[in-house]
Amino acid sequence: MTYCLAILTHAGLIMAADSRTNAGVDYVSTAQKLFDFSIPGERVILICTAGNLSMTQNVLTLISRDLKTRVASNLNDASTMYEVAQYIGHLTRQIVEDNRSWLSKDGIDFQCTFLVGGQIKGEAPELYMVYSQGNVLRATKETPYLQIGEIKYGKPILDRVIHFDSTDLDEAATCALLSIDSTMKSNISVGPPINIVLYKTDALEIKHRLKLLENDPYLESIRYSWEDAVKKAFRDLPTLSWQTSSEAYTEAENWLSPRNIYTS
Amino acid sequence: MTYCLAILTHAGLIMAADSRTNAGVDYVSTAQKLFDFSIPGERVILICTAGNLSMTQNVLTLISRDLKTRVASNLNDASTMYEVAQYIGHLTRQIVEDNRSWLSKDGIDFQCTFLVGGQIKGEAPELYMVYSQGNVLRATKETPYLQIGEIKYGKPILDRVIHFDSTDLDEAATCALLSIDSTMKSNISVGPPINIVLYKTDALEIKHRLKLLENDPYLESIRYSWEDAVKKAFRDLPTLSWQTSSEAYTEAENWLSPRNIYTS
Repeated sequence: MTYCLAILTHAGLIMAADSRTNAGVDYVSTAQKLFDFSIPGERVILICTAGNLSMTQNVLTLISRDLKTRVASNLNDASTMYEVAQYIGHLTRQIVEDNRSWLSKDGIDFQCTFLVGGQIKGEAPELYMVYSQGNVLRATKETPYLQIGEIKYGKPILDRVIHFDSTDLDEAATCALLSIDSTMKSNISVGPPINIVLYKTDALEIKHRLKLLENDPYLESIRYSWEDAVKKAFRDLPTLSWQTSSEAYTEAENWLSPRNIYTS
Repeated sequence: MTYCLAILTHAGLIMAADSRTNAGVDYVSTAQKLFDFSIPGERVILICTAGNLSMTQNVLTLISRDLKTRVASNLNDASTMYEVAQYIGHLTRQIVEDNRSWLSKDGIDFQCTFLVGGQIKGEAPELYMVYSQGNVLRATKETPYLQIGEIKYGKPILDRVIHFDSTDLDEAATCALLSIDSTMKSNISVGPPINIVLYKTDALEIKHRLKLLENDPYLESIRYSWEDAVKKAFRDLPTLSWQTSSEAYTEAENWLSPRNIYTS
């Protein structure tokens, strides 16, 4: 499995990814899933990958090949982030179509998804998801983050903390790491090192990138602070009153009895 | 969708369920998913249901029919909770087999799962999951809770708070409601009313049951307390230092560059 997420705010962009890959539980390995295709001063392009590793690697290889051979439409030809996302969607369709019938025969999941974020000089920073089918979706002010892979465990904290207009980039980075850490706790197929990048709007260059290893002191410090705070918050919750809530128990009626539903 | 969970501790059992059911997003309705088949003083049997509503309703109908016709093996004949779970697994296999080929033809998911908790006089309280295939799994001291339906959003809080030996029943009930509330926030197909039951070991009777409606004051109070505490806990986290973490950025090497992987 995999967990990658990207957060777009008024101040810029955070992109982060775990590095675990597995084929079943008996083949676990490490794979980089966050890639930087930037040309400092001109364009920042960051790509996160999830899904079938063979498919995503093939797409990245095609991106690199097109850059090398300088074919007419390559990553650096695109004049907007929308075109960048469309181009990656186009390559994804090509790779998936080449492999679909062979993988389908053996029931192998060939789905793959991408997060594509960055800024091209003269444009605003943008963030896209590219689906396995090649279509693209843009992050908006209403939902300024996108996730791929094992997305559920780490979503509640994003919903509670991230706001396009008010969250600053350091907060967004901490929230991204917390989101990944919660996911690692529940899903063993998501694991370190964690790669994370911070991009400030209009910098047109990545100045902040970190690779956090298994026992990284910061990761451990937010993990323990968070656990303690969550336990304290839980202890401080008001106690449930079994008498005063909206529909209290009356001896006369057990509405949970199946007799209320079935005439047995 | 559905979210049901049950927590077994040294002190007894908590079982809780949402009440939303849907066929696609354009057909949403309410369905009870927590049922009480207890005979006070003799046995407490609680059942939660998830999955294809037609399948789970059929299983409950067979349970009721067997109780009415007093066939040799019915819910009240079982002398252990293990036998209760096995019996429900047996009925599930019957219903699933009757319908499998017809539902499969049209690609309809016929999976259904059950949580079965309670106590039979002379035995300890036990908690089981019954799978769609009819096999059963018992909750243990190491993992004293079981979930069915939309299980991921509500799992992190359970992992952090619930311990078989030390969590009391009121804490477990609050944690169950928080777990359901987090799930409702992220998945619109999980919704109120929430039914929750508290069972004290050896009481052999359900004395605490609640149905919490949409705007239940307690549910709102823990929701807002929790949101505030989570936001505060987040603000109090140590700030990420981009310089001092385990592998800081050096100008010389951009390890996120695809050039480290592809020779383009």
